[in-house]
Order: sequence, then structure tokens, then C-alpha cells
Amino acid sequence: MLKFDEVDYRTNLNAQIDAIADGKKIADEISQQGFSNIFFVAVGGTIAMMMHFGEIAKQYTKIPVYVEHAAEIVLTGHSQLNKDSIVIMGSKSGDTKETVAAAKWMQERGIRVVSMVIDPKSPLGSQSNWCIPLKVFKGVEYEYLNMFGVFYGLLANNGDFPRFDDFAAQLKAHLADGLVAAQTRFDARAAEIAKKYHTSPYMMWLGEGELWGEVYLFTMCILEEMQWLRTKSVKSSEFFHGTLELVEKDMPVFLVKSVGAYRCIDDRAERFLKDHTDELVVVDIKDYQIDGIDEEFAPLVSPLLSTALLNGRLSKHFEANTGHDLDMRRYYRQFDY
Amino acid sequence: MLKFDEVDYRTNLNAQIDAIADGKKIADEISQQGFSNIFFVAVGGTIAMMMHFGEIAKQYTKIPVYVEHAAEIVLTGHSQLNKDSIVIMGSKSGDTKETVAAAKWMQERGIRVVSMVIDPKSPLGSQSNWCIPLKVFKGVEYEYLNMFGVFYGLLANNGDFPRFDDFAAQLKAHLADGLVAAQTRFDARAAEIAKKYHTSPYMMWLGEGELWGEVYLFTMCILEEMQWLRTKSVKSSEFFHGTLELVEKDMPVFLVKSVGAYRCIDDRAERFLKDHTDELVVVDIKDYQIDGIDEEFAPLVSPLLSTALLNGRLSKHFEANTGHDLDMRRYYRQFDY
Repeated sequence: MLKFDEVDYRTNLNAQIDAIADGKKIADEISQQGFSNIFFVAVGGTIAMMMHFGEIAKQYTKIPVYVEHAAEIVLTGHSQLNKDSIVIMGSKSGDTKETVAAAKWMQERGIRVVSMVIDPKSPLGSQSNWCIPLKVFKGVEYEYLNMFGVFYGLLANNGDFPRFDDFAAQLKAHLADGLVAAQTRFDARAAEIAKKYHTSPYMMWLGEGELWGEVYLFTMCILEEMQWLRTKSVKSSEFFHGTLELVEKDMPVFLVKSVGAYRCIDDRAERFLKDHTDELVVVDIKDYQIDGIDEEFAPLVSPLLSTALLNGRLSKHFEANTGHDLDMRRYYRQFDY
Repeated sequence: MLKFDEVDYRTNLNAQIDAIADGKKIADEISQQGFSNIFFVAVGGTIAMMMHFGEIAKQYTKIPVYVEHAAEIVLTGHSQLNKDSIVIMGSKSGDTKETVAAAKWMQERGIRVVSMVIDPKSPLGSQSNWCIPLKVFKGVEYEYLNMFGVFYGLLANNGDFPRFDDFAAQLKAHLADGLVAAQTRFDARAAEIAKKYHTSPYMMWLGEGELWGEVYLFTMCILEEMQWLRTKSVKSSEFFHGTLELVEKDMPVFLVKSVGAYRCIDDRAERFLKDHTDELVVVDIKDYQIDGIDEEFAPLVSPLLSTALLNGRLSKHFEANTGHDLDMRRYYRQFDY
């Protein structure tokens, strides 16, 4: 497969799965200390992947969970944020300006911070009470896995996720095989999709619930930032309240179908779209379920599958077709602004 | 001014301002009964305007406030939602499918619902414990005002908004004059903007904090739904983490500048955009502040000003230029889907 080193991928994934135990230890310490609520705080691609946990929390735990923007929270605080809160942050580079400032803001107020970083000595790492080790810079699946230990660990300790150990064991036994298989199966289709749509002046992308953050991330942080392609992302539920009027027979619309409780909303969007555009592309995560991982864990694993297909495969094929290097930026981190 | 009946507008606005007292009475009953948190639940344009109150809550009150989608919440519930919650809903037509279903879902579980409706006998009204009267179908300023009584009333009763009476009195004395003056002053500029951009194949729109819902609403529910124009809306804070890479000298970018704590984020976006596009349009709500309304209330009034300028003026001029009737739909409510 294009730009895919399977040995490397499996090694890194398994290292990140092993690190779930480190995250769980942090969760145990936090549970021991006590806490009242959880704030996820970051920007861009990191806040996008955190949205997944915000959705899961609504269904799994009575612990109040908030997902807030680092640039905003330092200006106003948040009425539910206090010394009993736990703030989970993340920055792969460890030096994202807004996130580092937010961590510092938390530290000054005695609010505990757990951070996903590659380098614990980075500016973010050094403003954190705990660091969760991120093994690899590229690949959002590592980021989700990174937060599994602390997030599901806190839920488990609260009695909300009793099968934590089974979940971790099934990931260890089957996730790498599953993600490699999914990408292998999707790769030819990704090549076709990219070939067909890489010159589109505009693409509409829909997703919902546990996968909304994925759609938000792939459109904004990959297609826009890394390919300079124009997109509109909209939740499948909200599509019906405005954006649907843009649909025409030749409008490329992408639907990333979820596997949990909100799937019926995606189904409704799919039914509508099948009738009104000839350019509908459905990426159905249900088609890529992983043998050996229980169905009850499917919504929890779904963003890893989604990111493996979209960021792992589709973005590489867009790059190959556009000739636009995914690492090229004209503005982002090129100068101060 | 184009499609503007000042006498009618003032009469309706003042009737809606008078109805703040009705909302306050509902708040008093609810406070008397007791409640643990507030859920705003709706879809589309209504959930968009509710986002404003979600932002205000973070700054003004310890009462936990959630903004959730009607189509989602009936599928999973929400771990913080229970019989002690107060659910604020709204549907101008009173028959929005998802919202009516959500109200029914709440009623079946004994959860109290307060709804913004024109007709209390509508399907939504008849599934609600209280109805807050909405005076007019068109005009989002009436919707914000509609919720002021119950929302700020609940905050006032909780000790979080002691100047409730002053706020209501200032609205009564000055809001109509202020909104008419703002529209009068903006109208010629709205005409110019619409003339220049009504054929743009794509427009980028930025906003933040208390005005993010406004930008979300105007792009999705007006430009997309009512004018079939393609947009990308993005929070000013998030613009820096992906969407900025799309900016080129000839890219139309609209920035709706807020007046509260997040204004510095809009300032940052403005500085960047001034350097990188020749087609930047800034609608600065600070330029339209209302004499007689205290500065501390400016963020609370800002979405009314924003909607008066954007929906009240700019949409009418887009319509005049495109020749596309704002009431024309090809799909929405034209058939079952």
C-alpha cells in the first residue's frame, strides 16, 4: 500500500496499546485523589479527536465531561471548572501556543492537567501534572489509544466501564490486525475516490455522534490544511436543516457512517442523498468491523477505523493525485501571526 | 430600507420585549419547584441561536447548561439529563419533527419542558409544560428575546444575574431604536456586500464565542438553505488550525467580530486575514452598540445586533441580487425524507 510500512505500523500501534496501562495508572492516581468532572481542552485536530470522548461520555458515565477550546478557556474560565476538575490536554508537538498557554493557566490556578505529549520535557509536558506518552507523531489512531487508558480508566474506576480489562485485552489481541486489514481492503477504493474527486472545487462531508469529530478533523486538518481543498462538514442530523438545499446531482457528498446509537441518523441522510446526488461516497465503518473485538466496543473503536481509512489511506491517495505534499503549508507555523 | 416595515418591526419587537416578563414568571415557577441543570434542545436555526446561551452560561452561572441536538438525545438520552432537569426547546412552526419527538420523549420520562412556540396548541406546544409566546415567525431577534425571560430569569433567581430588571428595562427603552439605527446604518453596506459577493462560488465565514451560533446560522440556514450559496463556517479560534491554509488573495472571507471576552481571538483572525486576502469583509458588532444599554450587557445583546444586520439586512440584499427568493426550497419540507 502507498506510503504504508506495515511492520512499523504494527510495532507502533502495539506500543501505544501497551501504554494504555500507563494511562490507567494515571487514572488510578486521579481516582484516588478524587475529582468532580473532566475537561478536554485543546485546539484543531486534537480537540476534534476529543469530541469523540465527549460523545461517549454522554452515554457511558455520570461524570460531567466538557470539551473546550484552549484559546477560549483562558479568557473566561468556565463556570464548571475548578480545583476539583481534571483537565486532559494534548499537543503532539508539545508546543501548540494556545494549548501550552491553557496548561499554564490551569497550573497557576492549581487545576490538575494530564497531557498527551511525545516529549514530557516539551512546553506542554512541563506544564502538566501527568504526561501520557504518545509514541508517534503522525496517525490519529495513536492519539485515541493514548487517551483510552486515562479516560476509560477514570470511567472504570467510577463503575461506568466494568469491562476495561477485556477491552484493553481485545485491542492488544486484534486491533493491529483489524486496522491493517481495513486499510488493505479500503486502499483500492481510496485510490478510486481520490482519483475521481481530487479536482473537486467543493466537497460536502457528513458524519454524526462518535464520528463527528473525525469528519470535522479530516475536512479541516487534512483536506483544507494539507491539500488546500474546499469543504463543508456538517453533522448528519444538521444536514437536514440547511445544507441539504445545496445538493445537486453532480455535488460530491461524503458520508462517514457510524456504528452506534446514531447510525439511524446517518441512514436517513444516506437515503436522502442516494436520491439527490450521483456523487455520493459512503464510507461505512460497519463494513470494517474487527474480528475478536466485541460488538459493544464497536462505537469506541470506530474513530480508529475511520482515521485509519481517511487519514491513513484516503489522504495519501489525494496527495498522490494532487501532487500536493501533505506536509506543505503556506501559513501554518511558517511565521508568527 | 429594502423589505423593512419599521412600524411593524418596532411593534413586534416591543411586544416580544414585553413578553420577557412572561418568561420570567415561568422562571420563577421553575425556581420555586427546583431544578438541577438546563438543557437547550432543538435543531437547525433554533439550536444555533441556543448556542449563544450555552456560551453565556459558561461565564455567568454555576448552573450546568447543555446544548443538545433533538435528533440525538432521543436515541441515547444524556447522562446529565434527569427528572430534575429543565429542557428549553423551540420550534417556530411548532411541528419540527425531531423537536416534537424530543419533547414527547421528555414528557414520557417526566422531564419538564419549556418551549418557544408561536402556537401553544401546536404539536410542540402541546408536549410542553410551559410555552413562551413567540410573536413573529421571521426574525431571529424575536427568538433570542423570547428566551431572555426564562434563561436570565433562572440565572437571576440563582443569584447569577442580579441586574435582570435593569437589563429588561434597558431593552424596553432602547432596543428597538438601536436595532433600527443599526440596520439603517448597515443597509447601504449590505447592498454593496451582496452586490459584490452574490456570485461567489464559495464564502468563508468566521465568528467566535457568543456569536459563533450566529455565523453557523447565517451560513447554514440563510446562505445555504435560502440562497443555495456554498459556505464554510469556522470558529475564529479554529480557523488557525486548518482552514487558514485555504486563504488566497481573491478568497471572500467574512468575519463577524464579537464584543465580549473573546474579541481578541477575532482580532487575531482579522490581523491575519488583512494580510492574506483582498476580499475580507468585517462586520464588527462593536460599531453598532446601542445607546442606553450598559456595556456589561453588550455580549448579551450582540447576537440580536448580528442577526438584525445579517438576517435582517444582508440576506435581503443577497436575495435582491441573486433573484433567488429567500422562501424557495427544493427539498426542505417539500416532501417526506
